[in-house]
Amino acid sequence: MSQFEQFASDNYSGVCPQAWKAMEAANAMPEPAYGEDSWTLRAADSLRALFDADCEVYFVFNGTAANSLALASIGQSFHSVICHELAHIETDECGGPEYASNGSKLLLGEGADGKLTPDSIEHLVTKRTDIHYPKPKALSLTQATEVGTVYTPEELKAIKSVADTHRLNIHMDGARFANAVAALDVHPSEITWKAGVDVLCFSGTKNGLAMGEAVVFFNRALAEDFEWRCKQAGQLASKMRYISAPWCGLLENDVWLENARHANACAERLASGLAGIPGVSLRYPRQANGLFVTMPDSVQEALRARGWRFYNFIGGAARLMCSWATTHERVDQFLADVRELMAQCPADQILRTA
Amino acid sequence: MSQFEQFASDNYSGVCPQAWKAMEAANAMPEPAYGEDSWTLRAADSLRALFDADCEVYFVFNGTAANSLALASIGQSFHSVICHELAHIETDECGGPEYASNGSKLLLGEGADGKLTPDSIEHLVTKRTDIHYPKPKALSLTQATEVGTVYTPEELKAIKSVADTHRLNIHMDGARFANAVAALDVHPSEITWKAGVDVLCFSGTKNGLAMGEAVVFFNRALAEDFEWRCKQAGQLASKMRYISAPWCGLLENDVWLENARHANACAERLASGLAGIPGVSLRYPRQANGLFVTMPDSVQEALRARGWRFYNFIGGAARLMCSWATTHERVDQFLADVRELMAQCPADQILRTA
Amino acid sequence: MSQFEQFASDNYSGVCPQAWKAMEAANAMPEPAYGEDSWTLRAADSLRALFDADCEVYFVFNGTAANSLALASIGQSFHSVICHELAHIETDECGGPEYASNGSKLLLGEGADGKLTPDSIEHLVTKRTDIHYPKPKALSLTQATEVGTVYTPEELKAIKSVADTHRLNIHMDGARFANAVAALDVHPSEITWKAGVDVLCFSGTKNGLAMGEAVVFFNRALAEDFEWRCKQAGQLASKMRYISAPWCGLLENDVWLENARHANACAERLASGLAGIPGVSLRYPRQANGLFVTMPDSVQEALRARGWRFYNFIGGAARLMCSWATTHERVDQFLADVRELMAQCPADQILRTA
Amino acid sequence: MSQFEQFASDNYSGVCPQAWKAMEAANAMPEPAYGEDSWTLRAADSLRALFDADCEVYFVFNGTAANSLALASIGQSFHSVICHELAHIETDECGGPEYASNGSKLLLGEGADGKLTPDSIEHLVTKRTDIHYPKPKALSLTQATEVGTVYTPEELKAIKSVADTHRLNIHMDGARFANAVAALDVHPSEITWKAGVDVLCFSGTKNGLAMGEAVVFFNRALAEDFEWRCKQAGQLASKMRYISAPWCGLLENDVWLENARHANACAERLASGLAGIPGVSLRYPRQANGLFVTMPDSVQEALRARGWRFYNFIGGAARLMCSWATTHERVDQFLADVRELMAQCPADQILRTA
Repeated sequence: MSQFEQFASDNYSGVCPQAWKAMEAANAMPEPAYGEDSWTLRAADSLRALFDADCEVYFVFNGTAANSLALASIGQSFHSVICHELAHIETDECGGPEYASNGSKLLLGEGADGKLTPDSIEHLVTKRTDIHYPKPKALSLTQATEVGTVYTPEELKAIKSVADTHRLNIHMDGARFANAVAALDVHPSEITWKAGVDVLCFSGTKNGLAMGEAVVFFNRALAEDFEWRCKQAGQLASKMRYISAPWCGLLENDVWLENARHANACAERLASGLAGIPGVSLRYPRQANGLFVTMPDSVQEALRARGWRFYNFIGGAARLMCSWATTHERVDQFLADVRELMAQCPADQILRTA
Repeated sequence: MSQFEQFASDNYSGVCPQAWKAMEAANAMPEPAYGEDSWTLRAADSLRALFDADCEVYFVFNGTAANSLALASIGQSFHSVICHELAHIETDECGGPEYASNGSKLLLGEGADGKLTPDSIEHLVTKRTDIHYPKPKALSLTQATEVGTVYTPEELKAIKSVADTHRLNIHMDGARFANAVAALDVHPSEITWKAGVDVLCFSGTKNGLAMGEAVVFFNRALAEDFEWRCKQAGQLASKMRYISAPWCGLLENDVWLENARHANACAERLASGLAGIPGVSLRYPRQANGLFVTMPDSVQEALRARGWRFYNFIGGAARLMCSWATTHERVDQFLADVRELMAQCPADQILRTA
Repeated sequence: MSQFEQFASDNYSGVCPQAWKAMEAANAMPEPAYGEDSWTLRAADSLRALFDADCEVYFVFNGTAANSLALASIGQSFHSVICHELAHIETDECGGPEYASNGSKLLLGEGADGKLTPDSIEHLVTKRTDIHYPKPKALSLTQATEVGTVYTPEELKAIKSVADTHRLNIHMDGARFANAVAALDVHPSEITWKAGVDVLCFSGTKNGLAMGEAVVFFNRALAEDFEWRCKQAGQLASKMRYISAPWCGLLENDVWLENARHANACAERLASGLAGIPGVSLRYPRQANGLFVTMPDSVQEALRARGWRFYNFIGGAARLMCSWATTHERVDQFLADVRELMAQCPADQILRTA
Repeated sequence: MSQFEQFASDNYSGVCPQAWKAMEAANAMPEPAYGEDSWTLRAADSLRALFDADCEVYFVFNGTAANSLALASIGQSFHSVICHELAHIETDECGGPEYASNGSKLLLGEGADGKLTPDSIEHLVTKRTDIHYPKPKALSLTQATEVGTVYTPEELKAIKSVADTHRLNIHMDGARFANAVAALDVHPSEITWKAGVDVLCFSGTKNGLAMGEAVVFFNRALAEDFEWRCKQAGQLASKMRYISAPWCGLLENDVWLENARHANACAERLASGLAGIPGVSLRYPRQANGLFVTMPDSVQEALRARGWRFYNFIGGAARLMCSWATTHERVDQFLADVRELMAQCPADQILRTA
């Protein structure tokens, strides 16, 4: 068993075949640099077609950059961004958004299952309006969330309403946007521009690319001079076709959606299997491609001793991420191991974590 | 003839076979993210071996980022960086270094053939020492320079001497470092740490990769916490092996050097051919892989009409860049076209540009 | 009764007579600009004498700048600063520290009475060490705190111990440092460099100046090139004597300490008076010059209708701040009004807020 | 003779009597903080009346801040600012504008007598439009210039025309704006909003205040949320009345204009006197309150030995600045000394500097 062909992260996986093939095709001949190649145009057009919108599209290297630069395009350094307290931009970007914006603060909201509520947003905007408090200008939603849940179109519309009241632009961190679309089974437009999203950071990396995220501005005014922002920030790939061609591979024949559906299905298979094991429970509802599993520390340790890899989330839950490359076979092996180890686990240890 | 298989830029070329093969190997199985994979370790070790130094090595996405972050690690926002007035960091990074450092000014020095002189450095450091003038802290040298010339080890040592006097750290922009090594026919250490370079940005992109530059700190103290800097700036690749594995491909069997030698040789072939054509001259000595050719505007226009692509430099010279992928056949075709067009060119036009 | 001669803030007060007199003296003749005048030297020397330390001293315009620039001198953009969740730098600087540092995050710790505990610091440093989490480099303590309490020398030493373990430099926000010294009745060195403080922002504004804070580096290495930092950030006063001369006025004959003692005594007089009024209580122990008083909203409203001015703190407590200019007469008038209004207040309203 | 009551700088002078009196009045009683006092409102209204415009007015501590923040309000980090190569924002702010904007580059234009020409602006905007070149967004003019000259209304209109063509907003560095108004003898509106200026930084410090500049936005859209920008950047004075009240003192009865006229007249008296001394010449036409005098180094040395203080400009010219506090007596003493020293000066030394 490969040491890493498992559940640690959807960014441990490699490049999916269709993306690889497109990258190979792009390598066949020289092309102009800095995005003036034919692949980049085609990838951007494909995204416009996918979203059925005349949006502006830019490709950057990774998610930190996509989110940080997109947020910086909404507000100034003295503005603030409202996000959930568990949002990746708060917990795992090492101050990336603050750096790109030269100092914007993130205001941390709350909500069950990792989802910001309209009330929490309202509270953060209205509790203070003095100049000592950075003026809220942007709202950042993660779809799917850090804990594997998704905002429904209705939830997004309720949020849009409070955003409009307070003139907040909406940014969507779509590190697992494809998984959210697959989970909700909606047209991508339903949870983006039709729900009021101004700019989406659509991840290719977690969906089967080597690297490369699309920053999609449905609100074109926010995209003004964005190419200069990318250039200055070190996010303009000179040989951009190596990012955009794989995107073409993902977008053709809805490979991106198939990849996401597969990952979600693997997660569901895991969830179903775990549901039948006493003493094991899910901390959040399984909706996309990730699970947060409460089980005894000793069992987690034993799983790792058998070669399984996964991270721990706040509170000790095991985070299991599935990707386009996860196999049913591995899922079943993992379930078998959990079952076996839980059966051997002393009852008092199980009680402690229940 | 491919529209772009020509002389516009060494970043129009694709990925060289050895790098591609390594990338393919890296794609064969999942690996941990964020540089904790086996390829990244191997690439870094190979660079340490190449330079025969216990240096710190980081991989970032592109040259803007490499240079900007390396410079930011030397000084604070209120310090300044001395560079040649033609340096890429001044002319073509859209303020990237100023952004990464939060405001460091570049102080522009002079020197023939795009090379900073010790006198010019001395002048910039000593002309003012008041607090209204940003204190010089770093010196940035481009090797090979923007105009295709190279600093000799002796020139570098003379610069090091003035740098030491004024406590300046030396940064080397190595967008075409491989071409410089090939041109000078020296061990890489001779023009880096043995010549006093503190940090080198070694470009893979222009040498045959899809993307990815190595930031090599010979002065390890400057590298303190540099991985955090990369992360925050959006320069930490989650699937880093897709940058580092191709680097392994370049480094094994000195492919990087062969690629550079080939490009330089093509440039020399171009230069030799042009030398025999009356009315055509080189603006700077041909030393690495680029030429800056003075010839009539009408001839340049006619060349473009025949499908050739190249940029113009300040003053109208045609910039011809060769890469690992340039072929002798193309070089000869180009020379033939220049010869033919120059022969047809009215004498008065030739005089105008002489 | 003046509309504002009250308890709203210690920065509503004017300039104390001794500071004014010094400013007048400084105005008597021209002086060199940018801190090269005689007053600035004298003020810095006086601070060195006061602290009995060979510290570096800089004068900046206000507290936001003092704190933000001092913190920026400790860490880089990708480092983080640990502070109490109620710290002014977190709640009331509109992202000033994040701006000056180009993106440092503040990590929010906890502790009763607005004081960070060693355990809370330890937790924030050790809970994560990965590169997605900004590396803690500085610790910021507010003395006196935002809720009017003070750290004892013993508490500071316990904090210093954990700071040393994790190589954190200690910044002290001394917006009300004078009040803390007066409250603790210690030599200023006891709660600064002898307790491990690396840099202190000592406020003159709240102590009786028109404007101007002293940034005092006990750790001189951190002060390297700090004058350039001030200049670039717009914090170098050209006519600096108008800041430094009043500081001389404050420092001569311990006026600063008398001002603070007076303000603290007025706060104590208020606290004692309120202690005898049923239904009124203090939310935090009264230690320096501020009180946070829980009393019915209707009573607060009635007080305001009678012309009294004060702000509300989180949870609705009335914040009463005393300054060098507060008079016993006003304190007694206020107490009389509270007594009268509380006596008239329906019992059910009192119960609600108890 | 006071050692400094001379020509070194207009910021060596003290506070003029009318400003002092207003500051004294402001000190008579407590007032709300952060600009919500009566003086700040009055000063802003007076400026609106002065300019006969419904402009937005903010007060900041010094000129570095005023210019840097005003420019940051025009463009983003990846935009650029066009200014004269001798502009203070380029030569003497230690990267202040680059810091406040998080990386905007200054593009240096040319023109005789320190004044940017429309052609130079046009050249900088049109020579490149690619994304590697920071997009010009702002134009900064210094009025009066660093070399003591003034832009006429006609010159400003010609510049406005090219600015409009290229959508550049115009910033005016008015460190000596009062002197320019006095020199041109025009209504302040003629060389600001009627000439297309979007934002003016109007200096009080050089006109007779202790500190404090007014940032005046004629283009109100640019002022959006500017108070937050000031707060975050450490430029919000808590006791703001100590800046705004002196401004009231300057604005009442046109004291600002009288101060400027007096300084200009002293400079003219100096210029006239020097005109009659063989071997002494002015490097730039005397138009405002400063002179740049070419005279032998030995004479400059001898003047300094007699106690006179002045700075040297590029090329060795003596810079003589007059202020509101300069006296005719001092001017005449200085002239007498120059006359005497020049008479004693060996002819060959005079020739060297002619």
